[in-house]
Amino acid sequence: MQLRVPGPTPIPPEILQVMSRQMINHRGPEFAEMIRSMTAALKEMFQTRGDVLILTGSGTGGMEAAIVNTLSPGDKVLAVSNGFFGERFADIAEQFGVQVERLRFEWGYPADPQAVRQALSRDTGIKAVLVTHNETSTGVTNDLASISAVVKEFDKLLLVDAISSLGAIDLPTDEWGCDVVVTASQKGWMAPPGLAMVSVSQRAWQANAEAKMPRFYWDFAKAKRFLEEKGHTPWTPAVSVFYALAAALEMFKREGLANIVARHIRVGSKAREGVKSLGLSLLPEDSYASNTVTAIKAPEGLEVKRLLGILREEQGTILAGGQQRLEGKIFRIGHLGYVNEEDIDAVMEALRVALPQAGFARAR
Amino acid sequence: MQLRVPGPTPIPPEILQVMSRQMINHRGPEFAEMIRSMTAALKEMFQTRGDVLILTGSGTGGMEAAIVNTLSPGDKVLAVSNGFFGERFADIAEQFGVQVERLRFEWGYPADPQAVRQALSRDTGIKAVLVTHNETSTGVTNDLASISAVVKEFDKLLLVDAISSLGAIDLPTDEWGCDVVVTASQKGWMAPPGLAMVSVSQRAWQANAEAKMPRFYWDFAKAKRFLEEKGHTPWTPAVSVFYALAAALEMFKREGLANIVARHIRVGSKAREGVKSLGLSLLPEDSYASNTVTAIKAPEGLEVKRLLGILREEQGTILAGGQQRLEGKIFRIGHLGYVNEEDIDAVMEALRVALPQAGFARAR
Repeated sequence: MQLRVPGPTPIPPEILQVMSRQMINHRGPEFAEMIRSMTAALKEMFQTRGDVLILTGSGTGGMEAAIVNTLSPGDKVLAVSNGFFGERFADIAEQFGVQVERLRFEWGYPADPQAVRQALSRDTGIKAVLVTHNETSTGVTNDLASISAVVKEFDKLLLVDAISSLGAIDLPTDEWGCDVVVTASQKGWMAPPGLAMVSVSQRAWQANAEAKMPRFYWDFAKAKRFLEEKGHTPWTPAVSVFYALAAALEMFKREGLANIVARHIRVGSKAREGVKSLGLSLLPEDSYASNTVTAIKAPEGLEVKRLLGILREEQGTILAGGQQRLEGKIFRIGHLGYVNEEDIDAVMEALRVALPQAGFARAR
Repeated sequence: MQLRVPGPTPIPPEILQVMSRQMINHRGPEFAEMIRSMTAALKEMFQTRGDVLILTGSGTGGMEAAIVNTLSPGDKVLAVSNGFFGERFADIAEQFGVQVERLRFEWGYPADPQAVRQALSRDTGIKAVLVTHNETSTGVTNDLASISAVVKEFDKLLLVDAISSLGAIDLPTDEWGCDVVVTASQKGWMAPPGLAMVSVSQRAWQANAEAKMPRFYWDFAKAKRFLEEKGHTPWTPAVSVFYALAAALEMFKREGLANIVARHIRVGSKAREGVKSLGLSLLPEDSYASNTVTAIKAPEGLEVKRLLGILREEQGTILAGGQQRLEGKIFRIGHLGYVNEEDIDAVMEALRVALPQAGFARAR
């Protein structure tokens, strides 16, 4: 089965294997050694000298953690949103009593740094900016380098959802001044879902000391203290997912971050070329199309649900549909983590067979 | 290695094996089938006709979920506490702005239902009662049947931490009128940590509809809607831990709840007898000693840390120390989940050898 959704992603056999290791005591020395070495490896991948914490929960939990650890009810934030996950980040903040100004861009288009500058100029009361690095729902990678430069110009806190980018797309956390960066084990990381990994800058710690949002399970300060003092987590960690992520980090170390990023550039480009060669169009333009997920417009006559069903049942290939307002209008190929060019060839071959059966024959 | 801490617990080989299954799409039909059948099996284990939800997170996350889904800031609760985890439940509520009245009992002793009655008579403004069914830190099982009868007499909401009891110690959720019951995959459930399972009564749903506590990740209503409408979870689930718990629930079905409970009674009793035969004393009295974890007083001359080190290094047996104020004063044997009489024999044999090396020779 070719699982080509933007997470969970397929897992290499050697990583699947470590998942069946027996439990260890998460309050013992063996766990401490594992989490310390994982944290060091993650810092390399995040390109940060700040703190990295591993939390048991999904990526959305990591996003909630970013909000409740740095803000107080009534704080004002600018939520840069150009898709389903940008809206989610804003929704979480709102749910916790933050005043959210949504800076919205059309789905399928990138966020405009110039518009961020204007919004920050207009309202000096904004404390933090929320940004999605890679918008999974539309296959768009935002220009985080430029956006972060604007945010730092105005000296604001920058909270980044990098769930589907980090570990696959270049994100130099410190260089770009990102204060909290959130990712999750089932995306670029070649591990099963269950862990959120977050970086916390010095500036985010200052915000944390003042932030009045209630927090217990997601408390960054407690996680840092337990990690540093004992090599433990405050609450019982998802031990077997830790095994998997530890093994994945070893594989990353062998491949090297630059090679990983280059591989995703090659694979992303190949996916886009393949899609076009089938006579299909991408939702986003090439210049800001994501290297981890490709979003394809459903051409006239194509029923997306039927296409996905045929692909799954007859071609053993699982792709994703569109989310929310894009349901039925696009379909998506995930290509992050354990992926190479041959995987893209296989997806294209499956599409070549399935598309006509689902009502689309390319114009000749 | 004999892992005999009160969680994570050892996992049967057949369950470890399913952990290495490849990922599936958690938005697809295969996942929906799995979670629906797991939910049905969990309802049998919880002995409830109410809802059961599976959340990705640790048991503490489940406790936080119980609080934020049923209460509003400023609500008053009675926190029945006779150990480390009772205090934690109270701490979580306090952290979220609840007015907490702590009804404390000495560590090693059970909570007194009569004292609960007095507290509820004294203060009619109390909205909910928080109770730990099985206090892992002291090896005491509270008389939840009697406590719940009192709570229902006063018509209050009853939130139960059953993390280390459910699936091992009898807990008829509906019969005892428990409104939210929280447990976690790494305790009696023979699965790795990473999932919290919670039951939600009709009355808890009524409270949920009025509860103003901010919540996003832990939102019960969203979890119920996604489960019923699509067989999905709102956020990405820890898929491989689901595999393990699904396999464990199959094993439970074969053994039968009554047999599982009876096995834990046998094993618990054997642990207590074994400990006494070594010349050691239990922290709690037999009549309320837990059948999932045995807490043993450190006799004079015994260094707990040294004993645990010798057991680990030389006997391949991992026991737990005491928590917080009991650190150095007790040690604990976990016997829940995948455990039988032979495992207790092995622990006793290891103790027989290690105790004299750690400074304790029984009086002759």
